[in-house]
Amino acid sequence: MISPEKPAYFDYNATAVLLPHIAEKMARVAQSQFGNPSSPHQKGREAKNILEDSRARLACLLGIEPDELLFTSGGSESNNSVLRQFLQTSEPVHIITSRIEHPSILETCRILERMSHIEVSYLPVDSEGRVVSETLKPAIRSHTRLISIMTANNETGVIQPVESLTAIAREYQIPFHVDCVQGLGKIPMDWREWGIHYASATAHKFGGPRGIGLLYIKKGSPFTSLIAGGKQERERRAGTENVVLAYGFAEALDWTLNHREAINRRMTSFKDQIIRIFQANEGFFLNGGRVRCLPNTINFGWHGLSAESLLISLDLDQIAVSSGSACSSGAIEASPVLLAMGLDKQKSKACLRVSMGWNTRQEEVDYFIERMLFHTKRLYAKKRTTP
Amino acid sequence: MISPEKPAYFDYNATAVLLPHIAEKMARVAQSQFGNPSSPHQKGREAKNILEDSRARLACLLGIEPDELLFTSGGSESNNSVLRQFLQTSEPVHIITSRIEHPSILETCRILERMSHIEVSYLPVDSEGRVVSETLKPAIRSHTRLISIMTANNETGVIQPVESLTAIAREYQIPFHVDCVQGLGKIPMDWREWGIHYASATAHKFGGPRGIGLLYIKKGSPFTSLIAGGKQERERRAGTENVVLAYGFAEALDWTLNHREAINRRMTSFKDQIIRIFQANEGFFLNGGRVRCLPNTINFGWHGLSAESLLISLDLDQIAVSSGSACSSGAIEASPVLLAMGLDKQKSKACLRVSMGWNTRQEEVDYFIERMLFHTKRLYAKKRTTP
Repeated sequence: MISPEKPAYFDYNATAVLLPHIAEKMARVAQSQFGNPSSPHQKGREAKNILEDSRARLACLLGIEPDELLFTSGGSESNNSVLRQFLQTSEPVHIITSRIEHPSILETCRILERMSHIEVSYLPVDSEGRVVSETLKPAIRSHTRLISIMTANNETGVIQPVESLTAIAREYQIPFHVDCVQGLGKIPMDWREWGIHYASATAHKFGGPRGIGLLYIKKGSPFTSLIAGGKQERERRAGTENVVLAYGFAEALDWTLNHREAINRRMTSFKDQIIRIFQANEGFFLNGGRVRCLPNTINFGWHGLSAESLLISLDLDQIAVSSGSACSSGAIEASPVLLAMGLDKQKSKACLRVSMGWNTRQEEVDYFIERMLFHTKRLYAKKRTTP
Repeated sequence: MISPEKPAYFDYNATAVLLPHIAEKMARVAQSQFGNPSSPHQKGREAKNILEDSRARLACLLGIEPDELLFTSGGSESNNSVLRQFLQTSEPVHIITSRIEHPSILETCRILERMSHIEVSYLPVDSEGRVVSETLKPAIRSHTRLISIMTANNETGVIQPVESLTAIAREYQIPFHVDCVQGLGKIPMDWREWGIHYASATAHKFGGPRGIGLLYIKKGSPFTSLIAGGKQERERRAGTENVVLAYGFAEALDWTLNHREAINRRMTSFKDQIIRIFQANEGFFLNGGRVRCLPNTINFGWHGLSAESLLISLDLDQIAVSSGSACSSGAIEASPVLLAMGLDKQKSKACLRVSMGWNTRQEEVDYFIERMLFHTKRLYAKKRTTP
């Protein structure tokens, strides 16, 4: 049943529904494990054991070493940590990123660019929203110190050509950072194989708790901490460690990777159904194409209709979808990601993002399709009668 | 009953026991409120309401405006946020702090000092561990841009002369930051009255959840964000807001301030009992004095005995105490705070910190006193027989 308490929820890329069995397990740990992992007594050691066990489990799931994994407060902190290292130097630095990165990359790059010693190049994307690999090599300079590209875009779901980009970076021996916030738990990734130096991820985009992220730092890679202080996290991130959330992160990723294939099969069938039916209706357009895209994400619009009126209508029907990135709250602005793909301002303001996850049900999908078609027909009819 | 599961816990300054009724309330919110506060639909608005309601409640309890309160991941992030603003400028900057600040201030200052445009002065403390107010005025330079002093020290509990220091800062119109991490919930404080520009605090030091802190930024004060990206927190701190923890923070502070007087009366009586009995035994020394000190903290030692052996013995008895700051994990190093107070290295390595909180019971205190005296007598006897 769809109800105000249980709406049809299609906003997993903003934040996923917390896995209930993980919530229960975390509550149990929170109750018994109140110690500080840095404390020199039994309760401290117990907390430290859970923390390090969670780190080791995550490292194993990610194919890395435990001491290459740093806990942070989330994806934005992880991304800022990688980039802001360059604020602590005065040597000339050149960074390469793309025009469709998450705001925690793009906004931070804009801050860095204000410093006289830092320059940033932004790679273009093609009309499907994929970074053009061929533009990387010509962008490299002698003082390029970092390349930062995402695995999959948060707005379009388009999977980026990380393999070919990292191959070029390896050839030129330039450290590579991959923002895996939207990719983790949804598509396979092999950080070792890619030969990257840094990767960001967070727990709450696939069913884990909010408030915990991770940063992979390949052994031997340069790193200066964003949050200095105590000796936590091998002196790379100060602050009392969040044992409960770290535990929840490990549990959630473990469960998710074990169920990924089944979840993705369901997502793909829902996605196919939605696109097939919508495409049979006039005015529909899809962004980002069908192939090489996250199975859970659909970015689309209806020619001439505004996302805002559709959002409001769907919201009144207890259907939760998003326009562009949830990080740009309040008024609907033209999405920089869609603009980079070549959409004009008006068309980009017409776009909606539907993102699904582990708990998306057939009932929700059917209801969403029915209501969406009802509203588009109603709005097109209104357009025809009011000049 | 004292047991391995429920040890006699005297390490509240490292992290307090989570208030169980807050944990229950948070679990309920976590279950129903899975929306992202930035999302443009019902679930997003519900989450935003809880977030903003929590912010307003905290602001009211702290006597500030809601839009002056920024949520962070904890005290270390708040402290780093204030200081690292100066990494984004190239103008000459002079900062004044003290020799006994938390590592998240001192370590960050050390990082800032490596930049050619930043200088830091460290005010001394007297033998009781209190910053010497008279040293502030002479330390001020024409380019002093910030003074950062804590309300109460985490290791000794000594309350700092914030009133007189802030009066001088107001006279010279220099922005003042107060690190209130150990003071909040324990002693009265009036940020408006002090005329300060920034204050840091965290929830888990008095009974709230871990992973959430706050930063007070007085309206009109300069601020550049440490974590850039989305437009959350009025574009001053990016990252998906942690609705559940913000709610827990507000609930916990509300409860704590309502019960502070009663808790502090109990703490004071426990503290008096411990000091009175220990002082009647040879070898005991107290750091930081009796007056102007947090009611929950005692820093002390026994001449000639090492903190390490006492910690181990107490730990085997299921008594959790700390040596110096919990942030310096692993091996016991001489505490910089105690060294600044004039203790020599050996004496400072003999010191223990006992810190109590809302759930400390008479039974725990009696048991701790009995075991401590047993072990000191045993260790002194051993010292006398083995040359």
